[in-house]
Amino acid sequence: MTTPAIDLPPIGPLDRETMEAAARRLDRLTKPPGSLGRLETLAIELAGIRGELVTSIERPAIAVFAGDHGITAQGVSPYPSEVTRQMIANFASGGAAINVLSRAAGAELVVVDVGVAGEPIETPAEGSDGPRLVAARVRGGTRDFSVEPALTDQETAAAVAVGARITGELVADGCDLVGVGEMGIGNTTAASAIVAALTGRPAIDVTGRGTGLDDAGVRRKAEVIDAALARHRPDPGRPLEVLATVGGLEIAALVGAIMAAAAVRIPVVLDGFITGAAALVAAGLAPELPSRLIASHRSAEPGHAVVLTELGLEPILDLGLRLGEGSGAALAIPVIRSAARILGEMATFESAGISDRD
Amino acid sequence: MTTPAIDLPPIGPLDRETMEAAARRLDRLTKPPGSLGRLETLAIELAGIRGELVTSIERPAIAVFAGDHGITAQGVSPYPSEVTRQMIANFASGGAAINVLSRAAGAELVVVDVGVAGEPIETPAEGSDGPRLVAARVRGGTRDFSVEPALTDQETAAAVAVGARITGELVADGCDLVGVGEMGIGNTTAASAIVAALTGRPAIDVTGRGTGLDDAGVRRKAEVIDAALARHRPDPGRPLEVLATVGGLEIAALVGAIMAAAAVRIPVVLDGFITGAAALVAAGLAPELPSRLIASHRSAEPGHAVVLTELGLEPILDLGLRLGEGSGAALAIPVIRSAARILGEMATFESAGISDRD
Repeated sequence: MTTPAIDLPPIGPLDRETMEAAARRLDRLTKPPGSLGRLETLAIELAGIRGELVTSIERPAIAVFAGDHGITAQGVSPYPSEVTRQMIANFASGGAAINVLSRAAGAELVVVDVGVAGEPIETPAEGSDGPRLVAARVRGGTRDFSVEPALTDQETAAAVAVGARITGELVADGCDLVGVGEMGIGNTTAASAIVAALTGRPAIDVTGRGTGLDDAGVRRKAEVIDAALARHRPDPGRPLEVLATVGGLEIAALVGAIMAAAAVRIPVVLDGFITGAAALVAAGLAPELPSRLIASHRSAEPGHAVVLTELGLEPILDLGLRLGEGSGAALAIPVIRSAARILGEMATFESAGISDRD
Repeated sequence: MTTPAIDLPPIGPLDRETMEAAARRLDRLTKPPGSLGRLETLAIELAGIRGELVTSIERPAIAVFAGDHGITAQGVSPYPSEVTRQMIANFASGGAAINVLSRAAGAELVVVDVGVAGEPIETPAEGSDGPRLVAARVRGGTRDFSVEPALTDQETAAAVAVGARITGELVADGCDLVGVGEMGIGNTTAASAIVAALTGRPAIDVTGRGTGLDDAGVRRKAEVIDAALARHRPDPGRPLEVLATVGGLEIAALVGAIMAAAAVRIPVVLDGFITGAAALVAAGLAPELPSRLIASHRSAEPGHAVVLTELGLEPILDLGLRLGEGSGAALAIPVIRSAARILGEMATFESAGISDRD
């Protein structure tokens, strides 16, 4: 398997001409040139991604993909696997961090069960004010990758296609910015394994505490990853093989979700380490992809810095977050929206009759 | 003059008991303990400042104080002094960065002319959708402090009182968080002079490009400050003397605004270097004050890092901003509001029926 089982437009470079037009407009606005720092570079990036001046973000959405991980049998997380399922119910009733943060950001929230273990999750009644819950389970969790590959090629492709379908539907519905997030007990282990495999680094360099391991737990987690990679030897030149071998269903869905939005020039806001690992897989399939991505924050997971460097992305926020769920993406949306509105709503020196510098 | 001419409750320490209650509640919410990083410490700080659990920010406001500076006669800014007045008109018609950013943050904006030079500024008609403009001019700009003290003690006290009155009115009106900002061509020179005088550092350590000086301009600006401080020798143990000697009317108003809000336990969100210099003056008058302040961002002005260290504050954002106007304070409000809502709206492990860690 060398390409995902989805039909996407090719992802090309940023639109440099439109970026220059945005930069010229920013320099005519009533402020010293460059004085809004990152807001100005964000406004220029948005123009390059969209191929037009972006003067507002009207309908941001956050898509959270959930899946379970067979590797939890190896004691890599302090929380039991059933917490994934319990947290989906918490998302559905509006009580999780991402519910609060997406409400605060004015973003629509979609939660997708692409691989949770156990009984199907009841979807909220029509008209309830919770988020939209999509049942799209490819399989009830991955296999334990310390023993066998986590997913077959077919399962991987199906999960990628679920992600692509979700963001495709969001965009068709009018969404103009997609934040991505995830939930899955054990998924920092899968993400660390992916990043170790793709970058050739020892697992300990890219393995962290996840939901709260102690030092001994982190060492054990890294050993589990190194042993699995030594056993399966996935080809780092084949990102989807790495994804199938040590990845997760929600991570595969993220790959599809990121690529499908980026392919139609919708800015994608990454959350933390796990969405970053998915972006690294996607970047292996489409080398121009990273320029269409926005890194919301720098996570407390040590592997995240490696991912950001590989992707060439500078995060907007650095708040010590290590929750996932899309929490960092939600917190960055008001900054990105403000960047767009600066371009759209500020007066120019001419229009406001203000003296320019000597 | 040793105390400001305003009658304020004393500013005491944070309410530790309420902070502990906030921390206990945060640990019961459906997330790994501490995984929301800075949002959690912000929620704890808000509790300590207010003396109660803060579960929402309903009516944030941003107060921008404007004044002119006689020191501009020494060529310390690339922009002419009349830009201060022109920018107030731009604020009034809604076209400046702070208009856009306070609208995006859902914050009320109040612009106060406490010391702009030239003709009085026309206030917008009742019912216009621009910000509220308050005419409270103490004097049409400061004197050139390279020649004589910028302000008399009486003028300084009057400007401090204007600031205290403005935040007092905002709080009486229901405002539950105050961001502060400023506008004044030449005011980074005044702020650098204040910080150099209060910390005993050579001016070059705390002097930056302002609205866009080149290297030679920065050196000249620092020389002007050093010469003025050598001439007037304000006593660093008397912050209001420093303020009167090399400060500004808007900086004095910021001192009053910050102290008046903090004294009634309303969180104050600082913007960048100039509001930080005002906070440093205020901290010299009320040593417990800094714990009631929130630093919104780390400015590109080099003196700001010195101010933040002196105040013991860690900024929320680092976006390379160097505009002022309250722009950083406006951008931090959604993060602070999200922190409050996390405490107010998230489910607990018990209420959501979620398994806690092993």
